[in-house]
Amino acid sequence: MADIDTFMGRAPVIPVLVIDRVEDARPIAEALVAGGLPVLEVTLRTPAALDAIREMKKVDGAVVGAGTVLDPDQLDTALEAGAEFVVSPGLTDRLGRAAADAGVPFLPGTATTGDIMRALDLGFFRLKFFPATAAGGLPVLKAMTAVFGQVRFCPTGGITLASAPEWLAEPAVACVGGSWLVPRGQAIDPEAIRARAAAAAQLRSR
Amino acid sequence: MADIDTFMGRAPVIPVLVIDRVEDARPIAEALVAGGLPVLEVTLRTPAALDAIREMKKVDGAVVGAGTVLDPDQLDTALEAGAEFVVSPGLTDRLGRAAADAGVPFLPGTATTGDIMRALDLGFFRLKFFPATAAGGLPVLKAMTAVFGQVRFCPTGGITLASAPEWLAEPAVACVGGSWLVPRGQAIDPEAIRARAAAAAQLRSR
Amino acid sequence: MADIDTFMGRAPVIPVLVIDRVEDARPIAEALVAGGLPVLEVTLRTPAALDAIREMKKVDGAVVGAGTVLDPDQLDTALEAGAEFVVSPGLTDRLGRAAADAGVPFLPGTATTGDIMRALDLGFFRLKFFPATAAGGLPVLKAMTAVFGQVRFCPTGGITLASAPEWLAEPAVACVGGSWLVPRGQAIDPEAIRARAAAAAQLRSR
Repeated sequence: MADIDTFMGRAPVIPVLVIDRVEDARPIAEALVAGGLPVLEVTLRTPAALDAIREMKKVDGAVVGAGTVLDPDQLDTALEAGAEFVVSPGLTDRLGRAAADAGVPFLPGTATTGDIMRALDLGFFRLKFFPATAAGGLPVLKAMTAVFGQVRFCPTGGITLASAPEWLAEPAVACVGGSWLVPRGQAIDPEAIRARAAAAAQLRSR
Repeated sequence: MADIDTFMGRAPVIPVLVIDRVEDARPIAEALVAGGLPVLEVTLRTPAALDAIREMKKVDGAVVGAGTVLDPDQLDTALEAGAEFVVSPGLTDRLGRAAADAGVPFLPGTATTGDIMRALDLGFFRLKFFPATAAGGLPVLKAMTAVFGQVRFCPTGGITLASAPEWLAEPAVACVGGSWLVPRGQAIDPEAIRARAAAAAQLRSR
Repeated sequence: MADIDTFMGRAPVIPVLVIDRVEDARPIAEALVAGGLPVLEVTLRTPAALDAIREMKKVDGAVVGAGTVLDPDQLDTALEAGAEFVVSPGLTDRLGRAAADAGVPFLPGTATTGDIMRALDLGFFRLKFFPATAAGGLPVLKAMTAVFGQVRFCPTGGITLASAPEWLAEPAVACVGGSWLVPRGQAIDPEAIRARAAAAAQLRSR
């Protein structure tokens, strides 16, 4: 199974998607992939999420993972739906052990030094920093990267096309999570999504 | 035993009380109940706290819980004093399991996504967000409620009569904790407390 | 073995040191001790760190500990190098138990109420607050000290000679960690270090 690094290195932005209608899943994935963002995180916050993962996986070039995974049961459900990687908002020992046992590429959410040390104990060196903007922003991330030299982050939460460059300029930042690419509650406009993806794909990553 | 939801739904504000003199306990509780705030949290930060819980329970209509409960021993002490619900500033597995075993309505403090996921693992879906203002305020709460749709919160810490409405306007906020109702270190003025309680009781809750 | 209180009470500031070249270790320690800051934290962030601890211990009056200790293996390594106390950026149960078992004075990093409650469960009442400035600054620390009356803190991270006094004015603050005394990436200037240490040693502590 691929390493989480593989996914984090494919593009500077991983779209974070909340899909309310399964029929939107393929057009969204096609537009994002066409724009240059092939790695997609579908959050398990809606009843349509698991079917959306299945639909998006049919799109050529799409790499589809599950987000907002909270416990081992949801991890199993996500894997059954074909999720190729898994993201969580935070980290519990239970979920971390289940992800390690399943061998699935896993990006656990962290916000504090204690979170990071528990992640390292479980063998995870690639971490989400969440909620990136609200939980202290770049000053907190910089304080933590100074201490944890071996860790690389995917900050997620409140980041925009405008603020992404300053996050991506940090050496410890591999990519960022982006919810601005497909705003929830709007009718799907594939061309607008493709254009936003293309702009995001131009951002410099490391 | 009543559910914690029952207590969170009785009034928009739960007064958070630090009682230094046991003789103040009944007049304070009478004034708060008269003003329309029947659910009272007595913090275990003072030697008078346990006797204050006993005294306040004698007041008609008062529902009295213990706050600042840090470990299973303090949980037992609070229950022996008659606490009808228990609140903690943070959550440990030890305390969470003890509260679940005791079957007492429990409102654990949380500040991060990891805290919330550990609470969910223990079966707690009603959570304190603490320290609400200092730990990132509404932006952090909003980021977390977007992820944890099934959770309702009681933000506590630094909230005032003026700022309470914006917290209570959040769908995921059931009530707020308020320390402004009975300022510590002042002589007790029952009429002033009743008036502050009446103003707080007018706040809209959901 | 000495208590961590002993070290926290020796001076208002504990220099937090990142040593890149082992030959810098003794001149730095001599300058800091001469300036009035005898308690030194060498972070395990560089290959030179363990040898730096050994070298600094040869300086009369220096009390040398290890910082950025992340797990029990690093704890063992630090103790073998002669570290007289140990500091971590955060706290895991694993590391806390190992430090308690080793009986070494231990200052665990904490940022949230959950961190503090887990530290208390393990028997630690003297805690680092990290990253102090980025993780909410004085408002967060004050909210937490109001709740945890028995805890004293060493805030660390982003504190400067200019901001140290407001931190040290808090009754619950025993000392602060300071990285401004020996800026990384500059040629060592012992006289400048001694002068900065002397200014820091004049700060009022409790």
